[in-house]
Amino acid sequence: MIAKTKKKILVLGGGFGGLEFCQQFKNTDVEIEIVDQKNHHLFQPLLYQVATCGLSGPQIAQPLRDILRKNDNTTTYLDEIEGISLEEKVAKGKHRSYSYDYLVLALGARTSYFGNNHWAEHTHGLKTLQDAVGIRSHVLECLERAEMEEDPDVRRKLMTFLVVGGGPTGVEMAGALAELGKHVLKRNFRNIDPTKVRVVLVEGADRILGTYSPSLSEKALKQIESLGVEVLCGDMVSDVRPEELDVADKTLRASTIIWGAGVEAISLTRDLDVPTDRAGRIKVLPDCSIPNHPEAFALGDLAHLVDAKGKPVPGVSPAAMQMAKHVATVIEKEIKSGKASHPDQRKSFTYLDKGSMATIGRSKAIAEIGKLKMSGLPAWLAWLLIHLIFLVGFRNRLLVLFDWFYSYISFRRGARVIFN
Amino acid sequence: MIAKTKKKILVLGGGFGGLEFCQQFKNTDVEIEIVDQKNHHLFQPLLYQVATCGLSGPQIAQPLRDILRKNDNTTTYLDEIEGISLEEKVAKGKHRSYSYDYLVLALGARTSYFGNNHWAEHTHGLKTLQDAVGIRSHVLECLERAEMEEDPDVRRKLMTFLVVGGGPTGVEMAGALAELGKHVLKRNFRNIDPTKVRVVLVEGADRILGTYSPSLSEKALKQIESLGVEVLCGDMVSDVRPEELDVADKTLRASTIIWGAGVEAISLTRDLDVPTDRAGRIKVLPDCSIPNHPEAFALGDLAHLVDAKGKPVPGVSPAAMQMAKHVATVIEKEIKSGKASHPDQRKSFTYLDKGSMATIGRSKAIAEIGKLKMSGLPAWLAWLLIHLIFLVGFRNRLLVLFDWFYSYISFRRGARVIFN
Repeated sequence: MIAKTKKKILVLGGGFGGLEFCQQFKNTDVEIEIVDQKNHHLFQPLLYQVATCGLSGPQIAQPLRDILRKNDNTTTYLDEIEGISLEEKVAKGKHRSYSYDYLVLALGARTSYFGNNHWAEHTHGLKTLQDAVGIRSHVLECLERAEMEEDPDVRRKLMTFLVVGGGPTGVEMAGALAELGKHVLKRNFRNIDPTKVRVVLVEGADRILGTYSPSLSEKALKQIESLGVEVLCGDMVSDVRPEELDVADKTLRASTIIWGAGVEAISLTRDLDVPTDRAGRIKVLPDCSIPNHPEAFALGDLAHLVDAKGKPVPGVSPAAMQMAKHVATVIEKEIKSGKASHPDQRKSFTYLDKGSMATIGRSKAIAEIGKLKMSGLPAWLAWLLIHLIFLVGFRNRLLVLFDWFYSYISFRRGARVIFN
Repeated sequence: MIAKTKKKILVLGGGFGGLEFCQQFKNTDVEIEIVDQKNHHLFQPLLYQVATCGLSGPQIAQPLRDILRKNDNTTTYLDEIEGISLEEKVAKGKHRSYSYDYLVLALGARTSYFGNNHWAEHTHGLKTLQDAVGIRSHVLECLERAEMEEDPDVRRKLMTFLVVGGGPTGVEMAGALAELGKHVLKRNFRNIDPTKVRVVLVEGADRILGTYSPSLSEKALKQIESLGVEVLCGDMVSDVRPEELDVADKTLRASTIIWGAGVEAISLTRDLDVPTDRAGRIKVLPDCSIPNHPEAFALGDLAHLVDAKGKPVPGVSPAAMQMAKHVATVIEKEIKSGKASHPDQRKSFTYLDKGSMATIGRSKAIAEIGKLKMSGLPAWLAWLLIHLIFLVGFRNRLLVLFDWFYSYISFRRGARVIFN
């Protein structure tokens, strides 16, 4: 008798989706290889805290192979995927090749400049730990230079921070930057007044946090303005040059421009010869499989899908995790049955929206859970609670809590370090 | 009546010596400028913990201007000093110039390659946070590459770590690297066995930790060998090439070579036209002033001094802090008296040795306090206590303790992140 060979599943990407998928197959009789170009899983929702000196990088990053150390069927590789042949069922990495029976594409998104990729040179994106640590160093350096600068125009530019994009990332960044100047750095300088830091949030739509109801957007606007942030809504950025940004008929000057305006799929998807949307996301079938490749799936920020209820699935971590579970069920069923299934025969994915929340600053947040709307302190506490609970597998959950709590009562921040 | 102008003191360097000096003049009627090329004070004794994933960088770094926020007479500048004119009493920075009435040189040391500066290209020094984070990333990357490597020779090289220098830095590094493989990374890999990591400690003298008594050196040797570290004593490194090191008649091959063999003064001292020793340290007068410049002082790793009791002052942080206090007393006295004093009339510096300790690994350390000698767990607990107490001004002392304690009981480490 010939031993039945184990099915080999290749997971590309160790974000929320990829990891959740691996956990679904923990200690089962399949062989999983997971490949990521970083050695760590990143808790992206707190990336802005690293960028604004609240947390250190390692506090929101956990080594993938440590998270998966008890998954004996799973091998982790640090490698960069350069191409995928869906026909030959093999992915080519920088260091080696990975063949598969099933493929799960969960490589996530990158910052989008809407076709103006050269703007990247003049702005800071916020997708990786490196981005965050880079912003932290840059912001601190601008204030250091301002302390020595005698030209008032240059000094003003050094003390101005522009944040593009009024989604959660932009709002959180702008709020945290304003608090940094207003509270954290108080008494730290002799020649400049850090409470005079100017933070401008630029949003093309007519309101910030546009995915929330208008009444909550309005509350968020009031909260962020109370921190001293200037909010410009209704006009798109038309050009970005070094330390300059054009919006409507104005030119804003700032040594720091943070770009949180949009994301797009990583470029790999465009080379796959599969249907993609404008943001490069793969238009998957209702079961999350890639058209004409029933053994290959895309999920999370990489997938474009209108779910079984007719709603577009948003690019948020709960959606990626739900898709991962769904795909795991589909694959598990197929392996158990021992024969290939047609995508039409498989269950369609339905996104369960458990609500969403965005934080603006200390005691300032909004939350929308079904018909329940919250803002201010209750929303902020809910945000804190949920984010701590969801720091899954993060051993330092309690330590992160302590750090936050300390920052809360003392208005000091623990990670004000320039790396260079 | 003309207002008496305040005396202007320029402090170069925000290490233990420079900061201690500033604190001595807190809220007094002088004007202090402190300049450092880093924005943070670094708790160097724990740098090896950052290099071996035990702590994150920000946990051992505190912003200088935050430490000094309540010193209203003190202005902090982030600048790199490029030259000093002792005649004109002015230091030239990259960004501006700094004139002074009194100068305190406390810029510290850098890694010394004993004249073979090209060895720096093939090895990792350990003096800055960047060095430590660089070693951390490199070590983790080597193991990642080993997990993918099929050639057994290359794999062995990737899993070999050479540490040059059997002083505290080298011993701590070697011990922590061995523990990383033996305990922390257990079960994390599928193709390699991290407990098989080879750590070699190379020391030119005939015993490690040569500043301690021979009996303690012997105990340290047993403790570090019990962790699996190979110790080579009695031969100097004769050459270093990429991934190769010659010692005695052997060539050792390793992808990681860490250099902790020696320090020398930063190069600036050699341009000052003042007497220096072979390591570039300024030969100061008994009051710590620079010969022929009674208003300029050097202290810490930058100063060469045989103290009033005839003992050479060692390059350790307690010595730097004691020198800082001494210099502060000398300057204060002179300012109060209103007239310049001659170095001969000033009090001579005497170093008070409060003992020293070195850690080797979990529950492994040695300590020598006067005639008291300790090793093993008691020495390790003493080391832990002293280092926590001396994390002066570090707000996260308690958090660092928690992190250590957690690492101690779980053998996991919180900062296993590759930054690149």
